[in-house]
Amino acid sequence: MILVADNLQITNKIIEKAVRENDHEPIQDMVKKCEAAGTAVIDINSGPLSRDPEKMAFMVAAVQEVSDLPVIIDTANPKAMEAGLRANRKTAVINGFSLEPVKLAQMLPLAKKFDVDIIGYLLYPDSHVPKDAAERLNVAVALCREFQKSGVEPERLIIDPVVAPLVWQDGNIQLMEILSVIRQLPELLGFPVRTIAGLSNLTTGRGPKEKKLLMERSYLPMLAASGLSMVLLNIFHQETVSVAKACEALMSQKIFAWEEV
Amino acid sequence: MILVADNLQITNKIIEKAVRENDHEPIQDMVKKCEAAGTAVIDINSGPLSRDPEKMAFMVAAVQEVSDLPVIIDTANPKAMEAGLRANRKTAVINGFSLEPVKLAQMLPLAKKFDVDIIGYLLYPDSHVPKDAAERLNVAVALCREFQKSGVEPERLIIDPVVAPLVWQDGNIQLMEILSVIRQLPELLGFPVRTIAGLSNLTTGRGPKEKKLLMERSYLPMLAASGLSMVLLNIFHQETVSVAKACEALMSQKIFAWEEV
Repeated sequence: MILVADNLQITNKIIEKAVRENDHEPIQDMVKKCEAAGTAVIDINSGPLSRDPEKMAFMVAAVQEVSDLPVIIDTANPKAMEAGLRANRKTAVINGFSLEPVKLAQMLPLAKKFDVDIIGYLLYPDSHVPKDAAERLNVAVALCREFQKSGVEPERLIIDPVVAPLVWQDGNIQLMEILSVIRQLPELLGFPVRTIAGLSNLTTGRGPKEKKLLMERSYLPMLAASGLSMVLLNIFHQETVSVAKACEALMSQKIFAWEEV
Repeated sequence: MILVADNLQITNKIIEKAVRENDHEPIQDMVKKCEAAGTAVIDINSGPLSRDPEKMAFMVAAVQEVSDLPVIIDTANPKAMEAGLRANRKTAVINGFSLEPVKLAQMLPLAKKFDVDIIGYLLYPDSHVPKDAAERLNVAVALCREFQKSGVEPERLIIDPVVAPLVWQDGNIQLMEILSVIRQLPELLGFPVRTIAGLSNLTTGRGPKEKKLLMERSYLPMLAASGLSMVLLNIFHQETVSVAKACEALMSQKIFAWEEV
């Protein structure tokens, strides 16, 4: 399970200010800290500042000046996505598309144009979340069909089942269904499709921090055992990262893998 | 997932001395502490002291004087098992039998005689551990067949897939196969068979304590998500117990279940 830091985002005031003022340093400090904390990929989220597509280009360039890690370009704005992809000099992933018509028309073609991986969300065309595992699997089939039409090789697709927040009334029930979806996807789609999940979604909203961290590090091994390929998380949650590494050892095919944890 | 304390055992010197001297108090102190720490069941392991079957009877009586929790009578000695079951005044479970001929001949019939649940180990008749998931499932089928011959209702069977220690060369690989075995057993055997796993087995042997605890609390949610019914663990490992409770909430069919963690 590959760890992806979700720390480089505009909800962090320091990062927001840096992006507004085109100041490389706070962004690069954050990237170095994320690398030191053990991330293997950096998610770059320019949030509402994506209205100016050049802000994403600026962020990608700033990150890649100090890091060789792959970046996930995380914006709902196709123009910002394109600017980010143009700025990219290393490995980039598009985050992401869904069955939403504007995403299919403007985001998905960028995977072909720039020959990069792309994350697809299991959401209905109106961005609603499917109700259960069966609905999610139906959406996955439809998403995969649209993806195939784009002419990109299947190996470029990464599916995000969209982690349900615990504050939703049936959050815990949906979270268990998401595990079964992750387990079933490769057989359903007929190839070893990769998956990604945003662990921070789990604890969005109200609730005491300690309990949120406990829920996070209890759900993560379940995701790992279901075969999740990549997890997007706050890489500064040290105990969660330790658990992720322990899961990696447990799931390794190498002998004595736990000795390296 | 029901928590079973494995703390009442002879490897604890205080407990050993109490059993040798027929001293109720240290045993009852331990039981009260286990209850306070959140256990739902007490495993009673008289170890080598089972040579005197009355020691198990003494332990069962001592526990049940202060606790109404179900007890798991944990001894390889059929005479000690029978003495324990005779002493039992509440709910008892036999731990356990396997395909080993002496176990089939002397331990399994006690489930019928005393009308109690019994734990069956996925081990070969010579007590060797099966090599992979396929072998374990074959053993489960053979075990279930022997169990059916005993005339006990299937609902009384609890299967223990035998958790592999991490210090084994291929421990981590076997641990992942055990998850798949737990998931497959109900369909394979054709009824919702319950399962139990000894989490302390995971970290038997050498290794730093902190890392062992990390591995334990990373593997536990994987077991839970696979559908494990009961986990035998050191109930004083507070963080592991918290994770178990978080797993319980995640897997609950109740809405807002995490609020009660």
